[in-house]
Amino acid sequence: MKFYFTALAFFCLLFANAQSVASPSGKINVDFTLNIEGTPIYTVSYKNKPVITQSKLGIELKEQGALTSGFKILSTTTRMVNKSWKPVLGQTATITNHFNELLVALQQQESGIKINLVFRVFDEGVGFRYEFPKQDKLDYFVISAENTEFNLAGDHKTFWIPGDFDSQEYVYNETRLSEIDNDKLNLNNGISVKSIGGRYVVQSPLMMKSNEGLYINIFEAAVVNYPVMHLDVNTKNFNLTSRLVPNAIGDMAYLQAPCTTPWRTVMVSDDARDIVAQKMVLNLNEPSKIEDTSWIKPMKYVGVWWEMHVSKSTWDYSGTQDAAQKVTDKPRPHGATTENVKRYIDFASKHGFDGVLVEGWNVGWEDWFGHWKEDVFDFVTPYPDFDIKEISDYAKRQGVKMIMHNETSGSVANYERRLDRAMETMVQYGYPAVKTGYVGKIIPRGEFHDGQAMVNHFNYVPQRAAEYKIMVNSHESSRPTGVQRTWPNYIAAEAARGNEFNGWSSGNPPAHETILPFTRLLGGPMDYTPGIFEIKMNVYDPEKTEQVHTTLAKQLALYVTIYSPLQMAADLPENYEKYPDAFQFIKDVGIDWDDTKVLEAEPGDYITIARKEKGSPNWFLGAITDENARNTTIRLDFLEPGKKYKAIIYKDGKGADWQKDPINYAIETKTVTASSKIKLKMAPGGGAAISFMPVTNN
Amino acid sequence: MKFYFTALAFFCLLFANAQSVASPSGKINVDFTLNIEGTPIYTVSYKNKPVITQSKLGIELKEQGALTSGFKILSTTTRMVNKSWKPVLGQTATITNHFNELLVALQQQESGIKINLVFRVFDEGVGFRYEFPKQDKLDYFVISAENTEFNLAGDHKTFWIPGDFDSQEYVYNETRLSEIDNDKLNLNNGISVKSIGGRYVVQSPLMMKSNEGLYINIFEAAVVNYPVMHLDVNTKNFNLTSRLVPNAIGDMAYLQAPCTTPWRTVMVSDDARDIVAQKMVLNLNEPSKIEDTSWIKPMKYVGVWWEMHVSKSTWDYSGTQDAAQKVTDKPRPHGATTENVKRYIDFASKHGFDGVLVEGWNVGWEDWFGHWKEDVFDFVTPYPDFDIKEISDYAKRQGVKMIMHNETSGSVANYERRLDRAMETMVQYGYPAVKTGYVGKIIPRGEFHDGQAMVNHFNYVPQRAAEYKIMVNSHESSRPTGVQRTWPNYIAAEAARGNEFNGWSSGNPPAHETILPFTRLLGGPMDYTPGIFEIKMNVYDPEKTEQVHTTLAKQLALYVTIYSPLQMAADLPENYEKYPDAFQFIKDVGIDWDDTKVLEAEPGDYITIARKEKGSPNWFLGAITDENARNTTIRLDFLEPGKKYKAIIYKDGKGADWQKDPINYAIETKTVTASSKIKLKMAPGGGAAISFMPVTNN
Repeated sequence: MKFYFTALAFFCLLFANAQSVASPSGKINVDFTLNIEGTPIYTVSYKNKPVITQSKLGIELKEQGALTSGFKILSTTTRMVNKSWKPVLGQTATITNHFNELLVALQQQESGIKINLVFRVFDEGVGFRYEFPKQDKLDYFVISAENTEFNLAGDHKTFWIPGDFDSQEYVYNETRLSEIDNDKLNLNNGISVKSIGGRYVVQSPLMMKSNEGLYINIFEAAVVNYPVMHLDVNTKNFNLTSRLVPNAIGDMAYLQAPCTTPWRTVMVSDDARDIVAQKMVLNLNEPSKIEDTSWIKPMKYVGVWWEMHVSKSTWDYSGTQDAAQKVTDKPRPHGATTENVKRYIDFASKHGFDGVLVEGWNVGWEDWFGHWKEDVFDFVTPYPDFDIKEISDYAKRQGVKMIMHNETSGSVANYERRLDRAMETMVQYGYPAVKTGYVGKIIPRGEFHDGQAMVNHFNYVPQRAAEYKIMVNSHESSRPTGVQRTWPNYIAAEAARGNEFNGWSSGNPPAHETILPFTRLLGGPMDYTPGIFEIKMNVYDPEKTEQVHTTLAKQLALYVTIYSPLQMAADLPENYEKYPDAFQFIKDVGIDWDDTKVLEAEPGDYITIARKEKGSPNWFLGAITDENARNTTIRLDFLEPGKKYKAIIYKDGKGADWQKDPINYAIETKTVTASSKIKLKMAPGGGAAISFMPVTNN
Repeated sequence: MKFYFTALAFFCLLFANAQSVASPSGKINVDFTLNIEGTPIYTVSYKNKPVITQSKLGIELKEQGALTSGFKILSTTTRMVNKSWKPVLGQTATITNHFNELLVALQQQESGIKINLVFRVFDEGVGFRYEFPKQDKLDYFVISAENTEFNLAGDHKTFWIPGDFDSQEYVYNETRLSEIDNDKLNLNNGISVKSIGGRYVVQSPLMMKSNEGLYINIFEAAVVNYPVMHLDVNTKNFNLTSRLVPNAIGDMAYLQAPCTTPWRTVMVSDDARDIVAQKMVLNLNEPSKIEDTSWIKPMKYVGVWWEMHVSKSTWDYSGTQDAAQKVTDKPRPHGATTENVKRYIDFASKHGFDGVLVEGWNVGWEDWFGHWKEDVFDFVTPYPDFDIKEISDYAKRQGVKMIMHNETSGSVANYERRLDRAMETMVQYGYPAVKTGYVGKIIPRGEFHDGQAMVNHFNYVPQRAAEYKIMVNSHESSRPTGVQRTWPNYIAAEAARGNEFNGWSSGNPPAHETILPFTRLLGGPMDYTPGIFEIKMNVYDPEKTEQVHTTLAKQLALYVTIYSPLQMAADLPENYEKYPDAFQFIKDVGIDWDDTKVLEAEPGDYITIARKEKGSPNWFLGAITDENARNTTIRLDFLEPGKKYKAIIYKDGKGADWQKDPINYAIETKTVTASSKIKLKMAPGGGAAISFMPVTNN
């Protein structure tokens, strides 16, 4: 059976209980019904295969009781939308928003409370949410629980991290659903603050693969004025239930009708590439609230940062802290000195980088971490050896932008009361962007990084920053859910285990970056900080055993496989100068795109992506593998037909291996066309990066 | 036995267990010892009569355990201080700080943790506190309980209000200690948010009178970075124990050594006037942290305020709310219109007032209260009928200052993140002062008005306001404990049941204002908003039964008996114009003082105070009584000897009575000298006010 929709037309199917809505292609189908108790039930299928079996929907209110049963259907409405829009920064110049919608208006018979359940079915998957219309029976209310079920059809292979209310910076576990168990995790993982919500609670985006080869992803979109949703897994029957993050007194969300919850999303395809390429998360968010976006620009940057992570210098002026925030008895030099910063500015200017980030420039780092301390930083006072005026003038002369750093140490109360002053300082010295940080337990005390108050904070900072025309890159925030469509100056976030963990912890296993496009990156750009060339940390200290878990070539490929309009060349200038030919790729690679092609993808194994730079004929390709070597042949049919391109291929050298010989790379130059193929041989933990630039006829 | 002290000399009485220290006069004595368990014990006596019998001292730490026993004395040190200082604004030009101090350095033998107990004994009473010196065994710590005991020697008569963590706006109960019981209170009292800490928990300042005629007061001073201390009363044995106000997760205070608790104070005298006149609370606070205090000035003001309380107009533009924050179906005009405000400015200018307060000037009042809503006000956007530019220009031309109003509705998170913007708006339009308000449950949610975070907020706003040279008058704050010495721009607070309750609730019984000088006013100036001439609310609406529980003459006397450098003439301009002769006293009365004489005082019964205006030869006297009529004769020996003064006596008229005939007043003019006496006849709920101005020889 097939539904026919007319754009923006409304159908009222009154008194019908079971309702169906299909994706534009017809492959995905959602069925909705009320069961005998009047409980809302939905299912999702893909090509007639069950994806979500009968699952309940419901919300519990603190004062008005449970909105979980006793409902009747007041009306149902369907509509089709097919529109396109242009993101300010993005992976493609244009995004198509095409879905069929089913709105079921419900009323709980006893309480009289009305809610709407809205399903939007895209070809990529399903988004649904609860809406609380304006009504007499419900004005202000407190959500005490959300009981959204996602009952899965099998014991899928799952890429999961624990449902920690304070951090997502975990290594992904790859197990069956039935094997999920946070108690079995090794938590000696470099994460400082952990608040795991329960033994079987995991985070979304939760990426799964069924025995039948279906790729299924459960996530959410547009988390605004609501806590993050984690998922409580029943490892026996593969039922998942939403687990909201509570506030200090155990409440989940404070709302006022009319309002909505975030969208709960179920993406599904038999082609893994469709998950990576999805746009439905962005489409489920509100359009930009910033009218003039001309000041929002992508940035490639370097920074006084990795040298602290590798213990060459320190954040604090007194030089007693190392990267793991332990006080050490071996004082090291302060990193953010005027002289050292100028060195980075010179380097950025010479190599065409847009920006320079400097951490540890401001007073407070001597005692910043781990004590739930409220007043650590004032965000405006530089250390005496950091001449902010001289530095910003110097950067201006060199044509380089400075990137501000505001570490809050989790004291949001302190940051908010100083936010205007912090931003005014940025405007005063011409900083167009700020990297924020939230390392530590949150103040107001009792709040979690993923609670409603913090979600609001993370959305609020870009909102206020927009008034100052400042872009925001937040670290240790709740993970993005496409809200950067609404606040396009929220150009990047961390919110996953970044490259930095390779510097001073057990690090990120080679498969890590092949999973991110199926999980964290579905929500938005990540400031992963790739580009580490000196892979092994023993170059800094013979006693160090830490290392990056990739080859050098794979570090280059990450600039393409990890989408972000803010990309760091994270290694030290002197390291790049050792490998100038490889460094050329980082200098060349685009960071904002007209088009993106996901060429190959398998979560946990490999991914290959090609992207066309915005407003340029150049294409760039990144291919990465996990701990296994991989050979592949790439057809270049994404290139403009008939055009000749010079392809510079940065690849793993013969015998390269992330562990044994990671820096071993080779560079090959070819002339290619859209009908060419390129064979790639990737080392264990390896990858390849290619730039394609049209051959000019002069 | 008497101790002899040398100023600033130190005595070390090592290895002695029992220690004593006496007040400079020798009347008050404190004994300290460790009991057999190594628990600190103190007693307080007055003229050898026990005031505090053997009482334990101790603190419980969340992680390091209980600091309640197992102590040894490391050393004891005594010193004497006798210095004087000049308050920026105050009741006297000079304040003498004269005390003997005993510092007992203790170490808990098992944990090795060191604390100091410091006792300062003034002639007015005792202040003591816990000090945590810098030490290896203690850096950051969390206080989970403070176990300070105040074991009283008898079943004293007590003036108490319940230990509410969110409000002090109660009528005082006058019972024996044994009769304290919050469960017996009528809580239909106009207070919107109540969080009473337990059945027998009461607030300090706790005023008592023993059967032997000792006036005893338990309070605290310098509450900084610490929650408010309430008192848990054992109604059987009259033992009181400190009860700190918790935060959202049940912790009391987050501290880092070196640090101190607030001072716990026990004031005692056999003359009630000594309690009222005490200066030890101020003396126990830190000196001013504001260097240039030239911009801190007393203010007498009128305002668009009482007309909302009596339902003539509304705070909100849409005109649907009344004074009790109930939505009503009788829309009334918006109060804060440009036209109406100009009327107040004209009135202020004509009668020599310094300022005009306007409430309801800014958007948000339509839905501001009672829903724990976070974003209510932005503190900068006026209603369309309030032309802030025109009004501030007009006020300037008329020589009148505008007083800003920032109601937060308890959403401190919202206020703090907008505080700079709010203050910049004040500077932009030349407002030198702000009245802040905190009506409602606190956000961050789970915090109480009296918790550490909120105490810090209330101290922080004046601190930040000082950067803008703005004075602060906070309503619904935690009650002052002398911190205005440190931040002298914190010129007034409410923090008790103010006159406004008489407008729309059961009100304040006639005894109320005779108790305030023994309780709330010990901590600092109160913005009581006296001066209501139209005593009965039926003048506005024949159905209204509310009334002010005083005569008109008593309203005048309150300008003297209630100390505040910020005093409102709270009634409507048109009401003052009806009684211009009585209004003259409000126009004449001083608000900042060179000297203050408490002439008569009995808590709950009466009080008479005379004050000399700062930098002027004029004296003013206020005398009030409770529900009982009172005759008294006042000797004028406080006046300058040999000088003739014109005394204008504003008194209750014949047959005046707060209930039956409250507006009935008489004015008498006399010439008097320091050797004159004045007989005063006060009506039930009545009072008298007198101005003394030197007779000029022209």
